[in-house]
Amino acid sequence: MEPITTIIKNATVATATELLHCDIGIRDGLIVSLGEVNDENAEVINAAGRLVTPGGVDAHCHMDQPSNDGSVMADDFETATISAACGGTTTVIPFALQMKGSSLDAAVKDYHQSAEGKAVVDYAFHMIVTDPSPDVLEKELPKLVSSGYSHFKIYMTYDDLKLNDYQILEVLALARREGALVMIHAENSDCIAWLTDKLEAAGKIQPQYHATSRPPVVEREATHRAISLAELVDVPVLIVHVSGSESMEQIRIAQNRGHKVFAETCPQYLFLTAKDLETPDFEGAKFVCSPPPRTPEDQEAVWRGLQTGIFQVFSSDHAPFRYADETGKAHAGKGAAFKYIPNGIPGIETRLPLLLSEGVLKGRLDIHKFVSLTSTEPAKLYGLFPRKGTIAPGSDADLVIWDTKTPFTLTNDRLHHNVDYTPYEGMNLTAWPEYVISRGEVVSKAGDFVSTVGRGRFLPSDKRKSGPSVGQWK
Amino acid sequence: MEPITTIIKNATVATATELLHCDIGIRDGLIVSLGEVNDENAEVINAAGRLVTPGGVDAHCHMDQPSNDGSVMADDFETATISAACGGTTTVIPFALQMKGSSLDAAVKDYHQSAEGKAVVDYAFHMIVTDPSPDVLEKELPKLVSSGYSHFKIYMTYDDLKLNDYQILEVLALARREGALVMIHAENSDCIAWLTDKLEAAGKIQPQYHATSRPPVVEREATHRAISLAELVDVPVLIVHVSGSESMEQIRIAQNRGHKVFAETCPQYLFLTAKDLETPDFEGAKFVCSPPPRTPEDQEAVWRGLQTGIFQVFSSDHAPFRYADETGKAHAGKGAAFKYIPNGIPGIETRLPLLLSEGVLKGRLDIHKFVSLTSTEPAKLYGLFPRKGTIAPGSDADLVIWDTKTPFTLTNDRLHHNVDYTPYEGMNLTAWPEYVISRGEVVSKAGDFVSTVGRGRFLPSDKRKSGPSVGQWK
Amino acid sequence: MEPITTIIKNATVATATELLHCDIGIRDGLIVSLGEVNDENAEVINAAGRLVTPGGVDAHCHMDQPSNDGSVMADDFETATISAACGGTTTVIPFALQMKGSSLDAAVKDYHQSAEGKAVVDYAFHMIVTDPSPDVLEKELPKLVSSGYSHFKIYMTYDDLKLNDYQILEVLALARREGALVMIHAENSDCIAWLTDKLEAAGKIQPQYHATSRPPVVEREATHRAISLAELVDVPVLIVHVSGSESMEQIRIAQNRGHKVFAETCPQYLFLTAKDLETPDFEGAKFVCSPPPRTPEDQEAVWRGLQTGIFQVFSSDHAPFRYADETGKAHAGKGAAFKYIPNGIPGIETRLPLLLSEGVLKGRLDIHKFVSLTSTEPAKLYGLFPRKGTIAPGSDADLVIWDTKTPFTLTNDRLHHNVDYTPYEGMNLTAWPEYVISRGEVVSKAGDFVSTVGRGRFLPSDKRKSGPSVGQWK
Amino acid sequence: MEPITTIIKNATVATATELLHCDIGIRDGLIVSLGEVNDENAEVINAAGRLVTPGGVDAHCHMDQPSNDGSVMADDFETATISAACGGTTTVIPFALQMKGSSLDAAVKDYHQSAEGKAVVDYAFHMIVTDPSPDVLEKELPKLVSSGYSHFKIYMTYDDLKLNDYQILEVLALARREGALVMIHAENSDCIAWLTDKLEAAGKIQPQYHATSRPPVVEREATHRAISLAELVDVPVLIVHVSGSESMEQIRIAQNRGHKVFAETCPQYLFLTAKDLETPDFEGAKFVCSPPPRTPEDQEAVWRGLQTGIFQVFSSDHAPFRYADETGKAHAGKGAAFKYIPNGIPGIETRLPLLLSEGVLKGRLDIHKFVSLTSTEPAKLYGLFPRKGTIAPGSDADLVIWDTKTPFTLTNDRLHHNVDYTPYEGMNLTAWPEYVISRGEVVSKAGDFVSTVGRGRFLPSDKRKSGPSVGQWK
Repeated sequence: MEPITTIIKNATVATATELLHCDIGIRDGLIVSLGEVNDENAEVINAAGRLVTPGGVDAHCHMDQPSNDGSVMADDFETATISAACGGTTTVIPFALQMKGSSLDAAVKDYHQSAEGKAVVDYAFHMIVTDPSPDVLEKELPKLVSSGYSHFKIYMTYDDLKLNDYQILEVLALARREGALVMIHAENSDCIAWLTDKLEAAGKIQPQYHATSRPPVVEREATHRAISLAELVDVPVLIVHVSGSESMEQIRIAQNRGHKVFAETCPQYLFLTAKDLETPDFEGAKFVCSPPPRTPEDQEAVWRGLQTGIFQVFSSDHAPFRYADETGKAHAGKGAAFKYIPNGIPGIETRLPLLLSEGVLKGRLDIHKFVSLTSTEPAKLYGLFPRKGTIAPGSDADLVIWDTKTPFTLTNDRLHHNVDYTPYEGMNLTAWPEYVISRGEVVSKAGDFVSTVGRGRFLPSDKRKSGPSVGQWK
Repeated sequence: MEPITTIIKNATVATATELLHCDIGIRDGLIVSLGEVNDENAEVINAAGRLVTPGGVDAHCHMDQPSNDGSVMADDFETATISAACGGTTTVIPFALQMKGSSLDAAVKDYHQSAEGKAVVDYAFHMIVTDPSPDVLEKELPKLVSSGYSHFKIYMTYDDLKLNDYQILEVLALARREGALVMIHAENSDCIAWLTDKLEAAGKIQPQYHATSRPPVVEREATHRAISLAELVDVPVLIVHVSGSESMEQIRIAQNRGHKVFAETCPQYLFLTAKDLETPDFEGAKFVCSPPPRTPEDQEAVWRGLQTGIFQVFSSDHAPFRYADETGKAHAGKGAAFKYIPNGIPGIETRLPLLLSEGVLKGRLDIHKFVSLTSTEPAKLYGLFPRKGTIAPGSDADLVIWDTKTPFTLTNDRLHHNVDYTPYEGMNLTAWPEYVISRGEVVSKAGDFVSTVGRGRFLPSDKRKSGPSVGQWK
Repeated sequence: MEPITTIIKNATVATATELLHCDIGIRDGLIVSLGEVNDENAEVINAAGRLVTPGGVDAHCHMDQPSNDGSVMADDFETATISAACGGTTTVIPFALQMKGSSLDAAVKDYHQSAEGKAVVDYAFHMIVTDPSPDVLEKELPKLVSSGYSHFKIYMTYDDLKLNDYQILEVLALARREGALVMIHAENSDCIAWLTDKLEAAGKIQPQYHATSRPPVVEREATHRAISLAELVDVPVLIVHVSGSESMEQIRIAQNRGHKVFAETCPQYLFLTAKDLETPDFEGAKFVCSPPPRTPEDQEAVWRGLQTGIFQVFSSDHAPFRYADETGKAHAGKGAAFKYIPNGIPGIETRLPLLLSEGVLKGRLDIHKFVSLTSTEPAKLYGLFPRKGTIAPGSDADLVIWDTKTPFTLTNDRLHHNVDYTPYEGMNLTAWPEYVISRGEVVSKAGDFVSTVGRGRFLPSDKRKSGPSVGQWK
Repeated sequence: MEPITTIIKNATVATATELLHCDIGIRDGLIVSLGEVNDENAEVINAAGRLVTPGGVDAHCHMDQPSNDGSVMADDFETATISAACGGTTTVIPFALQMKGSSLDAAVKDYHQSAEGKAVVDYAFHMIVTDPSPDVLEKELPKLVSSGYSHFKIYMTYDDLKLNDYQILEVLALARREGALVMIHAENSDCIAWLTDKLEAAGKIQPQYHATSRPPVVEREATHRAISLAELVDVPVLIVHVSGSESMEQIRIAQNRGHKVFAETCPQYLFLTAKDLETPDFEGAKFVCSPPPRTPEDQEAVWRGLQTGIFQVFSSDHAPFRYADETGKAHAGKGAAFKYIPNGIPGIETRLPLLLSEGVLKGRLDIHKFVSLTSTEPAKLYGLFPRKGTIAPGSDADLVIWDTKTPFTLTNDRLHHNVDYTPYEGMNLTAWPEYVISRGEVVSKAGDFVSTVGRGRFLPSDKRKSGPSVGQWK
């Protein structure tokens, strides 16, 4: 047996099932032993009294993504992944966006270029399919699915992204044939356009009308439609960023029928409401994302859904638009309609601390659900498990050693993203990573990035292990 | 570090979350290491190519339980636990039945006497509370809950067992105060009595009318009532042996509301139907249990409920009544009404092989759900986790090494219970334990019991870790 | 053709279906012609510009009912029916209460004696079955059902009234055999007793704790149980005085399954809330009834249920207990627990004006639903249709000519019951009967009783036309 | 008082509420008196022992409608309305179809020309809006709604008819502003196209694949979407030709929320199933309509929905395509795909006899529901009440006197449409109209048309009385 290189001593290890008091032995970036681990020559990190969880997997985050409307993402792979790492996330799955008329291969190549030499944690890609031409469906996608890109996202809204129902069926049928998993952004495009036109005509163009233009029924309709299309094709599907009770109800109904509908939610649906968009002086723009945050009752429903199993995935939907810049939210919208404000808010670094502090430490969510939602299940659904998503022999040594005893007030200057605000400014929390370890290497310590840029590696997804076949064993 | 005594080499370890390829190091009956484990002096069991799961926890099984009606349980702790062990179950939680007018302490003492020197695997007790007198509620139960008996069962039917709603509320309130978990047998007693009287008056007394006397609505009613009472008291509750879709629907509705309602089902609701009670020559009596098996549609619903999370526990409800004996089912009922047939069927040894073979190997259930339902969740709900219920450093070395490649036809002579039939006679299966290991000791090998009678130990339940607080961590 | 004696000229006649502008011709107390009606010798009542509805049928009202607890009903058949008449109700169906151990025949005879010579409008009786002995089930009830008493009420709560589930099944089976309709007071008796004991023990004995002792779940549980028992027997059933959304949901689920579950609600669930029981100086006692009024959200649900067809019947549940008297609510409860306050509030005179004014005139309820709920459907369900419940040739000339243009503030001194308060004191209304006509005779004019005591007649119910067979025609 | 011209003597008159034994007095085509009616000079029709119902209102029927695909409707207003009249229908509401690019005014004018001089019973028009241009929405529709065309139909499928969601919202918003009622054909167009393409590619082009190409989920999806859009605009909506349980469930959920969702079903969903499309020798084409007939379980659900109030309207959806003709179903489809078979089946004459015979006479539906569904509610929803839809003073004397005692076997030669088959060939029925009376004139007697072509009149709809405001009275 070769020697252990690093030992995490006396950890309180939480997985989706266990809460263990043990040591973790690491060699060559892998966990090789759990239990009593001793090696005189190994480096030892004392975790006595500390909670240790698997490194987070952020399965919904945008970085360095181009746009057609002049908006500019503030984070590239370097700043985004440093921010992720400092917040306890050691795997990110951003999007590789196909431009209409262009090939998917090209998109994938571009994003590899963007990531290489910059990313500080490991990464996979979801492809965004915007143009399911015969060539894409018959040639590119089957090949990509087999070579590590076994999940993709489609949109039911946004003019430059959306597919019609026929196209959605084509993509779902392809996913069924190839064993891939489709994620769907479910909002009814026509409803949003119609409401936006009516609001504009009535002079209602301030940020809060963003929420008015996308009421729950618009999301519920698209959710039911997406599920119906998946049911027609008989293929699993995952609904991203579910915002509240009406859509959740549709998802639960389908789950009860035995249809494999997976669902994701995000911090903004637990910690923000539509009221935040009314913040004066155009600062409401800081909370503009889609679907918009809803009501306190919806927040309660989302908390309940995390615990009762409606949701499998808790992601950030990090979309890094600056506020005060020339190309930022304040500029884009001011004097113009809410519809020009870039959609999306930052959150890649705060995702885990928020949920641990406000969920687990306050007794709303059990620790196993926390691990499952933020790491294990996304790793499983997207074909990265057991390499990522757990603390077990053979897995990558991606770990977070937590400080859960030091209260602090969250401010944006603590964060490492390249965005000039956090929507959670001023919240009082008690959880922050003390050490973040990626493949056995400490990348963040006491909130600071302590490793080297470009160390992150691409993670091919294993389609045999993703969504549809999760947990099948013979 | 002290030396390892036993190593399970190259196992395919399944837990509720993981599927690992690793070694398991054992010392003093405990798992001390997972991963690469080497020790020259250790005994090695080669598990290459074998699935290894945590030893089963059968949380609902009757043995050596007295009765008022002359029926006799064929299994005492010796035969029942040998049968359990040979089928892969290393923890049993039978019932300690309070006789009306008698104390709970007395019941607990009696059952300890029955178990000691006989049990071959470890055991805890559920108490059956039939007489919640002030003395029981105020003195006995609080003390018992604190000393390792933190879960109890109550009945809504059977004249000598049932509580009225006022008494149920008293027991639920006690459970809330003391942090205990209440299991409920939910069938409406008056409905059964009324239907039985009508059937008898009409001369419909054959075994199949047992099912007619307890239709789904009778179970649904009591399930809704049990949940309502628990909701009133604001305390978790667990509904045992749920038989089909109507009751499942009530449970799901409550779970969706966020109320902690747990549910158990059993092999008879997956593999038998009410048709089996029509087997001629009074052999229908072999399938008489309560609630009765239902329809093929209900079977489908129960399979779906296992996968979608309505159920947390899969138990045997082993109730060992012989068929052909003088005190057996054939005798008791013949020439008389179905109501005299002892209620219950055997199944402690077949529980795990049936579910693994027909569920996991046929692709209806994922391996993690299998582990969770048969071992992890019952251990958690009843305060035995992490000592039991998983494969992890620090846990008892309770393991099943499976043979999943040898097809066979199930016959009763393969089984070790003291019952003269199995309701699953003739089924073709492909899973049976090769080794069953309890606290590091091989107790069963290739289907034979190979250890010593009386080696089983009592497991006090830890109320802080049972039902209500599962997964809470701070 | 014999001559018409009275003509209502130019009426705006509302039925459950029509809104007609026509004359109504009356002879011998019957409507003989609708349309253009002319007879030189007839008395003419000019109804130009007036809404005319069928006289109300109050299918749930208590009068002259004895008690075991010393409480005294303030209204006998004289005062209660004068009050009914002045409020537009021309048919009452009070209860004939069987005393435990006593016969139903005796109860029926007693109530006939109480009514004869006193009632000023026509009446039928619901029997309250409290003691379903073999004699009652096999002899008395079949005979009574055939001779005009085809509907009865049973209780799931109140110690001196309640039946257990076995008895309920017996009564439901009798109803099925004989073609009768069973009304059920659905609250869980044990839950109420348990909560009351706990509240008392905590010193919470003020009137508002009456509501705390009977929360919605208590009513929901009993409603689901009542429906389940009726489903088992396969017989229609009617749930009385449904108070809010939780029970309504149970009823709707059963209705959707196709089971004939009928439902009644009352003014107290539209116009009062549990807050009213907090009125200081013990005046909360004025609002103590069972089930208690609920929340504003429940009020909305009940309004919606009236319109969407969950409810078929809108009754008063008039229970005339005085407040300030020695035997009244104030006295009974003061210094003692809420449990001594007689359950029930007055409302026989205000039922129709409240619903017409606040429902129809404010656009919450259409006029046809008003007629259907207050007159047509109760007449049909209880076998009095088409004699009562509509305006049609051949029907009794029971009519209300409304003043819907004069706003007024409701005060108790306007009312004719013998109760010293109205729970609706101070409400501003715009509907009150101008004329109330019973069998062609004006019995009330501009709010005053103008006829003779004792003119009311007994109405035998026709079982072939009640509940189960409503609308069957061949 | 002017003299009565016709008296229906001793009728058993059924309305949506009443079952009366009375005479009906008629003058100038109107009912002027109900009850005892005598006039020496009047013509008398003896209805002793006969059921008399209001003349049927067929609110969904196609006649003389052009097409783009070469299919030809076999019935013009003459043959269609004679067929209607002989089957007991005295009011028809066919469709005036706007051609894309053309004006609605033009469509309405065309259809008036088609009807005038031909129709033998009274008629209104639903407009089909296929091109909601600004001109149509802002000018034409508001004017048309105010002048007697207050309801229109839109399609979610068929390339030449369908609107997208934005357009649907525009039409719904117009309906809300103007007080009109929108009917929606709810099937997902893309799903049908996609399934049709896949079926064709697999060579599955026989008639039965028409049903495969439009499974229940396709209708359920569009139903939920239509309701969601109506909910967004907050306006009532009516879903036409609902085929089974999945869509019904969506409708009931919305109705329970209090949203005004009305629903229609048709004979084909009670009496046919998808199996009928498998009739050999291409005769399955005779049953091709959209949505397709479903399963026996769906039939049961539809029967239940008629009784429980999910449905308000029972129409024929008469679409008169011949089978054997050159332009007929057999020709259009043979050798080609099912998609070329004209969608729709005949049924204008059989609608009422089928429902009366199989529903009312067999005890599945009460007589009042029959009247309500086939006459009263469609008249109310489409603004024709009380002129049409009931038997009451002041209403048109549109009556059916039934023979419900003579059994017969239905064959197409009994029918008066210009279609060469009936899908109900060979059914054994016991109800057929003896007399059909339209505005006081006998138009059909013993199954023969006995009046003059062209006597039918246009009925302007009164928008104040249609859908949204049904039953509002102040």
